[in-house]
Amino acid sequence: MKKVLFATTALVMTAGVAAAEVAVSGDARMGFIYDGDDLQFSSRARVSFTATGETDSGLSFGASFRVDQENGIDGEGDILNRSIDGLASQGTAGSVYVSGTYGKLTMGDVVSATEKINGDLYSVGYTDGAFGGDLEEITYLTGDGVNLDQGPNVLYEYSINGFNIAASMSDGSRVTCAGAVYGSLGCDDADLIADEDTDTAYSVAVGYDLNGYKLGLGYADNGDASEIVLSGEASFNDFTVKGIYQDLSDVAADDGVSIMEYDRTFGFSAKYDMSNGVGVQAFWRRDEFTLTDIATGADVDDEFDSYGIGASYDLGGGATLAGGIMDSDYQEDAVADMGIKFTF
Amino acid sequence: MKKVLFATTALVMTAGVAAAEVAVSGDARMGFIYDGDDLQFSSRARVSFTATGETDSGLSFGASFRVDQENGIDGEGDILNRSIDGLASQGTAGSVYVSGTYGKLTMGDVVSATEKINGDLYSVGYTDGAFGGDLEEITYLTGDGVNLDQGPNVLYEYSINGFNIAASMSDGSRVTCAGAVYGSLGCDDADLIADEDTDTAYSVAVGYDLNGYKLGLGYADNGDASEIVLSGEASFNDFTVKGIYQDLSDVAADDGVSIMEYDRTFGFSAKYDMSNGVGVQAFWRRDEFTLTDIATGADVDDEFDSYGIGASYDLGGGATLAGGIMDSDYQEDAVADMGIKFTF
Amino acid sequence: MKKVLFATTALVMTAGVAAAEVAVSGDARMGFIYDGDDLQFSSRARVSFTATGETDSGLSFGASFRVDQENGIDGEGDILNRSIDGLASQGTAGSVYVSGTYGKLTMGDVVSATEKINGDLYSVGYTDGAFGGDLEEITYLTGDGVNLDQGPNVLYEYSINGFNIAASMSDGSRVTCAGAVYGSLGCDDADLIADEDTDTAYSVAVGYDLNGYKLGLGYADNGDASEIVLSGEASFNDFTVKGIYQDLSDVAADDGVSIMEYDRTFGFSAKYDMSNGVGVQAFWRRDEFTLTDIATGADVDDEFDSYGIGASYDLGGGATLAGGIMDSDYQEDAVADMGIKFTF
Repeated sequence: MKKVLFATTALVMTAGVAAAEVAVSGDARMGFIYDGDDLQFSSRARVSFTATGETDSGLSFGASFRVDQENGIDGEGDILNRSIDGLASQGTAGSVYVSGTYGKLTMGDVVSATEKINGDLYSVGYTDGAFGGDLEEITYLTGDGVNLDQGPNVLYEYSINGFNIAASMSDGSRVTCAGAVYGSLGCDDADLIADEDTDTAYSVAVGYDLNGYKLGLGYADNGDASEIVLSGEASFNDFTVKGIYQDLSDVAADDGVSIMEYDRTFGFSAKYDMSNGVGVQAFWRRDEFTLTDIATGADVDDEFDSYGIGASYDLGGGATLAGGIMDSDYQEDAVADMGIKFTF
Repeated sequence: MKKVLFATTALVMTAGVAAAEVAVSGDARMGFIYDGDDLQFSSRARVSFTATGETDSGLSFGASFRVDQENGIDGEGDILNRSIDGLASQGTAGSVYVSGTYGKLTMGDVVSATEKINGDLYSVGYTDGAFGGDLEEITYLTGDGVNLDQGPNVLYEYSINGFNIAASMSDGSRVTCAGAVYGSLGCDDADLIADEDTDTAYSVAVGYDLNGYKLGLGYADNGDASEIVLSGEASFNDFTVKGIYQDLSDVAADDGVSIMEYDRTFGFSAKYDMSNGVGVQAFWRRDEFTLTDIATGADVDDEFDSYGIGASYDLGGGATLAGGIMDSDYQEDAVADMGIKFTF
Repeated sequence: MKKVLFATTALVMTAGVAAAEVAVSGDARMGFIYDGDDLQFSSRARVSFTATGETDSGLSFGASFRVDQENGIDGEGDILNRSIDGLASQGTAGSVYVSGTYGKLTMGDVVSATEKINGDLYSVGYTDGAFGGDLEEITYLTGDGVNLDQGPNVLYEYSINGFNIAASMSDGSRVTCAGAVYGSLGCDDADLIADEDTDTAYSVAVGYDLNGYKLGLGYADNGDASEIVLSGEASFNDFTVKGIYQDLSDVAADDGVSIMEYDRTFGFSAKYDMSNGVGVQAFWRRDEFTLTDIATGADVDDEFDSYGIGASYDLGGGATLAGGIMDSDYQEDAVADMGIKFTF
């Protein structure tokens, strides 16, 4: 293996020019997962590309995606139904942006405005919550993969005087072609299976940052369903707390026997990052829903409580030792992980 | 994310050695497509690897492919029939070459000699013609993915005194193995499904460059089908024009009701690249064919006309604003695109 | 295409910090394969990522995988059954490690301890044996892809006073989730198809290096099957010889008509690397097995002999011209290859 040689070129080109480049970075992790029944090994390695450039007039632009965002497999999705797993080369994974004084416009597999401003609860464990199904993540109504059957989505962001404004949308058009993946252009009339006008999913949100306090408020609409999300975060020295409240309308799942309609999700999380590298993280969330029996029409309100707690130790150089425990009414057993995660 | 560290190694190694290296580059685009019915978002991001080296005796060698040329999905092909979508690691996407005083020999997913010498008409739009099905591209008989069921193809090129000579061929052998993709070697007798002798596709072509004028002539043969291609290109200051004529024999598609036999394709294109960064591009092409009713034997000559027109503006730093319109008798509606494309 | 720019960052960061990095390297090859019936073109290009870092306390860590180890296709496997083809992002291809004074621990698609210590016979040809089905490779009982239905495997290595000690294992738990690939964590109770306790495959081995002599001994256990492997290697100036003996218990394949039980595999190989860049390589192996007729219970001992011979010439700069011939009782015809291979 030979190392890559850039130095001569680089030394010449650093003399003031705004040159486009592709940076290569990565992450990895290794450790143990307790899935409620068994202790299992779990590891992964990933590489990311971050391309950046600048136009003559000073407009920034760039693109980023991971190698595994080109395989059409997300590890969770249907292996054969690759159309919704996303491909950076088709705009349904990764993203591309332009940015200037007017704000930043990103296209691809972007998060919604509500998610961009309000985010998630704090994750625990060396797999950052993946060992427990990412219970710290709020299920947002649009963006982040939800509307990729419409191809790339867009996210606009603008910041002024501590206010962060965001808006996002899908294009409302789902084109299905013989053998083609969503977002691809390789579809002429002969291959066209369906060109459906579907609902344009959209979202608007605003956040405010002031001296360690953050507030967020957003609204999203996806077909009949809608959400209002409110969040607040506060930092006191090494201690940070965050709360999120999501009110949902017409978000329902139907299994033929009963209809499960989600009413609201809310949760709190806290983390403590000590100067010696030790950190502790915790979250709790509740998902409230109404269960309606289709045959009798009888309904009942119910809820799922979930929580997680974790600890970490920064080993320096990009390595962190971490472990966590999560439990949920949604899962049968409590689960745990312990291992090392790396950034390169 | 840490930046990659090469400087120390690089400074030491630049002292005269011919070292092999892998350069990382990329491209991306974002904008809008009008597909005749709807306006849609369209974006993508891609990364390319270009590996180069030199032997002690001064022979150059190298290889190149994109990350998405390892996913086995080309965005247009059959998702499950991955064997013909190509993999750089199996020689059916990307390519490998050696080059010296005797010329350059490239193996993999190469273009045919006729395409190498005659090329295509000029593309329009920020998706470089993809928004309209790449109507500016001539459908060459071999190479460029057509014969990859035979595994890698080869292309030989040699230039002398303004003449560019090219020859290409497939190997005439299609080996089908249980579960294996074309081009792979993992096939022993137990897994062998079929080892067919198929037609060796080949192509020869010659071009001539003189003071801004280019001429090209080529012949290709793929089974019963053959093509003769003639092209000419001329540049006058910022203005360039190009014409291509392709005569086809025995190139037919049969849908059970009628046989469509392509007779010839010809087209013209022009582009104007102004010094202020503004460019305009246009092409027109005609595909002539004979339609024979299988039941009655009655035939009729018909043709498809297609055209495209586009404009672009170079923003510097690798960014270009571009848009285009295309229409064709082959498609129901005119289509258009508008957006920004980037190189990194 | 712009070259990547790292120099400024790199020069600043080389001042003593232990920074994580991702190095990009690659390999490629092109040439001809004679498969016993036809001469075929064969080429490929691959890119590898090697990520490395160091904690503040001096612990080394890293990860490595190739781009094609993210496509879920190994070129030989079942295209649809992607779960066992492996993904670096799920721990079933590539690997992650930590290393310190206590030894090195690697997780992912690792080789078994027996393979790590005893290795394979020497490969021949520009495809390093792939043209003949890698007959130079010993079929080890665990690791190297065999147990990836249990997710990542682990390998531990430690060296002291010329002794190399290795131990490896799988976790004995095979979790099958709807649509998910092995090793992924995206499986909650709703998606769980099966959580089976399967056999933990493990292996232990020890090697000894002394003045150009190497000895290896290992044991592996995978369910009812087990293996004992013994190897020796000796170098005399430019000449190196190696022998491997593998004794197998309860390793059987059943086709419904007869049961084929492998008893032992043994082989020898030699290579001669001359100072002028010319090398010759050869191997011979025998696989002994018992064939039992299921209906009659009659059994017969039989064996497969395989051999290969090759020559190579180092062209410098990472390029090697090489060719080889292989024949085996297992295959109908002798096969051969000839071509150039590159490292970047």
